[in-house]
Amino acid sequence: MQYNFPLSHSQLLELTQKHATPFHIYDESMIRGNAARLNRAFSWMPGFMNYFAVKALPNPFILRILKECGMGADCSSLAELVLAEKAGITGENIMFSSNNTPAEEFAAAGKLAAIINLDDISHIDFLEQVAGMPEIISFRYNPGPLKDGNVIIGNPEEAKYGLTRSQTIEAYRIAAEKGVRRFGLHTMVASNELNEEYHIETARILFELVVEISQKTGIRIEFVDLGGGYGVPYSPEAEELDLAKISQGIKSEYDRLIAANGLSPLRIVMENGRMITGPYGWLVARVRHLKHIYRDYAGLDASMANLMRPGMYGAYHHITVPGKDHLPHDHKYDVTGSLCENNDKFAVERMLPELEPGDLVVIHTTGAHGHAMGFNYNGQLRSSELLRRCDDSVVEIRRAETLEDHFATLDFARLKNF
Amino acid sequence: MQYNFPLSHSQLLELTQKHATPFHIYDESMIRGNAARLNRAFSWMPGFMNYFAVKALPNPFILRILKECGMGADCSSLAELVLAEKAGITGENIMFSSNNTPAEEFAAAGKLAAIINLDDISHIDFLEQVAGMPEIISFRYNPGPLKDGNVIIGNPEEAKYGLTRSQTIEAYRIAAEKGVRRFGLHTMVASNELNEEYHIETARILFELVVEISQKTGIRIEFVDLGGGYGVPYSPEAEELDLAKISQGIKSEYDRLIAANGLSPLRIVMENGRMITGPYGWLVARVRHLKHIYRDYAGLDASMANLMRPGMYGAYHHITVPGKDHLPHDHKYDVTGSLCENNDKFAVERMLPELEPGDLVVIHTTGAHGHAMGFNYNGQLRSSELLRRCDDSVVEIRRAETLEDHFATLDFARLKNF
Repeated sequence: MQYNFPLSHSQLLELTQKHATPFHIYDESMIRGNAARLNRAFSWMPGFMNYFAVKALPNPFILRILKECGMGADCSSLAELVLAEKAGITGENIMFSSNNTPAEEFAAAGKLAAIINLDDISHIDFLEQVAGMPEIISFRYNPGPLKDGNVIIGNPEEAKYGLTRSQTIEAYRIAAEKGVRRFGLHTMVASNELNEEYHIETARILFELVVEISQKTGIRIEFVDLGGGYGVPYSPEAEELDLAKISQGIKSEYDRLIAANGLSPLRIVMENGRMITGPYGWLVARVRHLKHIYRDYAGLDASMANLMRPGMYGAYHHITVPGKDHLPHDHKYDVTGSLCENNDKFAVERMLPELEPGDLVVIHTTGAHGHAMGFNYNGQLRSSELLRRCDDSVVEIRRAETLEDHFATLDFARLKNF
Repeated sequence: MQYNFPLSHSQLLELTQKHATPFHIYDESMIRGNAARLNRAFSWMPGFMNYFAVKALPNPFILRILKECGMGADCSSLAELVLAEKAGITGENIMFSSNNTPAEEFAAAGKLAAIINLDDISHIDFLEQVAGMPEIISFRYNPGPLKDGNVIIGNPEEAKYGLTRSQTIEAYRIAAEKGVRRFGLHTMVASNELNEEYHIETARILFELVVEISQKTGIRIEFVDLGGGYGVPYSPEAEELDLAKISQGIKSEYDRLIAANGLSPLRIVMENGRMITGPYGWLVARVRHLKHIYRDYAGLDASMANLMRPGMYGAYHHITVPGKDHLPHDHKYDVTGSLCENNDKFAVERMLPELEPGDLVVIHTTGAHGHAMGFNYNGQLRSSELLRRCDDSVVEIRRAETLEDHFATLDFARLKNF
């Protein structure tokens, strides 16, 4: 992995004069370049579109940029549907891929004419009751024991998502009887997966199922949604996914299974989030205190409220120290926040240059599942989000939370008569 | 563990007519009774006070009740200081026990005349600069290799908290030189610990250190804060802490170490949160969907946004089904939320009565670290909090989040010119 924080030390110093740390900053031109790279890699695919997984970076300014890059939105809740609509993404450019879905969310997705991707066979009747049957529908297939999962998402057999193989076949029959005319097929079995073969195999499994559905029901599938789960390299040793290899692998399965069986054109779509924005976001924080006890600690002005992955999953996030990266990395620190939770650590026993209070640190690869996962435990507030635009200007695309925001659901006035 | 949800099935049905699920509900009389039980158990202790750990249940209405029960507030952030003050808890009834503390929080604690419990030796100078030296100060001792931690909080030697033994002695010398006149000593080495001996040993370690500080510096410690960490029984097999056993154990150590050395009276305080409110809060949710694939799933209208502990720690929370608890528990369910995270499960392979959509379920022991830890991932909103008062009436003490709250930090209007 090559890390690529786009600001020089002096540019960063200037930026922190205007914007208080901590903040996440995203780079528009890198995100655009990466989106174009994905689109290019899969341009042979009929009607290719990546539906950006909104949960990864639920900011409407980012969604607007991705729309301009030809992306749709993969939404899983009412809030995410609203964000997509605000960004101007509507109709079949929204994939509504939810599970355990409430009635009002199906209704909202129906109103936006989104493609609804059903997670369970029982949801056909439920959808019909609460929103009416749409013209197009998709089903989420869970391959169960036929496919290994990966660490983050767990084994498909133990996962709450999707329909079994026999349910999937049956679901298309029922939907067709209810008047649905157009059909998609979806699966999502991995998260942050860096093995190219895994993604090719996922496509193969779906293509085989398209053939089986066609043979058993006569139903012609219009698109397959290969899901997301394309990984990004967080650690220095990890390498970027080889998109060309995945693309070629999928193409040869497509030719063998889809084209050879007369099922072409089959539209191929995806719903990657992390790989689109993950490496192009950074959490910028400042060293607040150094502490030397049984270990050495560098306490930042950020915490798990700003980035949960290290504390929640033990995930690695690279850390650099602008202005000091040329110095020997000969000091070992636990890099912490200020929560009363000992897992509030961005790094454990990490070798870094010697730090001083006031030093700026950059925590890398926070452009996905970063700000979005923050909580307010211990009364910690979530930070602002900045965007470095293509002309190098920086704009704030989400302000930091205030105490007023934090207390918005409390009615302090009622305490008087309590 | 005996579970004690205070509402009958019909009372709960009536309540859910007025208050939409999901919600947390707390029971005032049980909390008051439990607070009195703690106070009674430790009434022999000179000047005993429990400083309730605000992070466990940061609701000012609860804090107001606990104030009436003679409790103070253990605060670790600016937001928590504000909540304490709103509830009418000020001065030395606030213990400000923070780590990696920003200047403005020390200043706020100083303004409230809270007892400041310093987490690091370097914070003496820092506090002096940003808020001036107070009359009373406490230090947090980290016993390091001298004490085992427990699972949740980790080993003291790897924990970011507190001062080493030699730093602690030195810290009192420095503080006395700077004019501090009154002194406390604190440690916190366990979380949710159900072994009585562990808590007695913690007291012994602090008493021994009080003696050593007295011998080495001539400084007389005014109070020890034994920390919190008193566990509650989450699972049916677990048993409640025997407070009398802890109290007697601590008393004999007190007599042997403190009284015998002429260091009496030494005020003894604690900062329990979980054991005060944990068992007297419940998350009430409704079954939204049932799903039968490789396992059977019951999807609720609550999610990790409402209760993080099962997903984050794999923690057990008991689940009952009002109106069905007399039926055989012969169905095995994964009880899930609707997040796009497979760890969004309240229970895995749990035996329950057969469920139907619409059934109400009660998730137990959510009165601490429940609502407080919720996040908004996937655009999920946090629920309301209700309080069952001593006269059996129920009042809302925090409203549910709305989409407007969720989007408060976004400026949608700026999207037009973006």
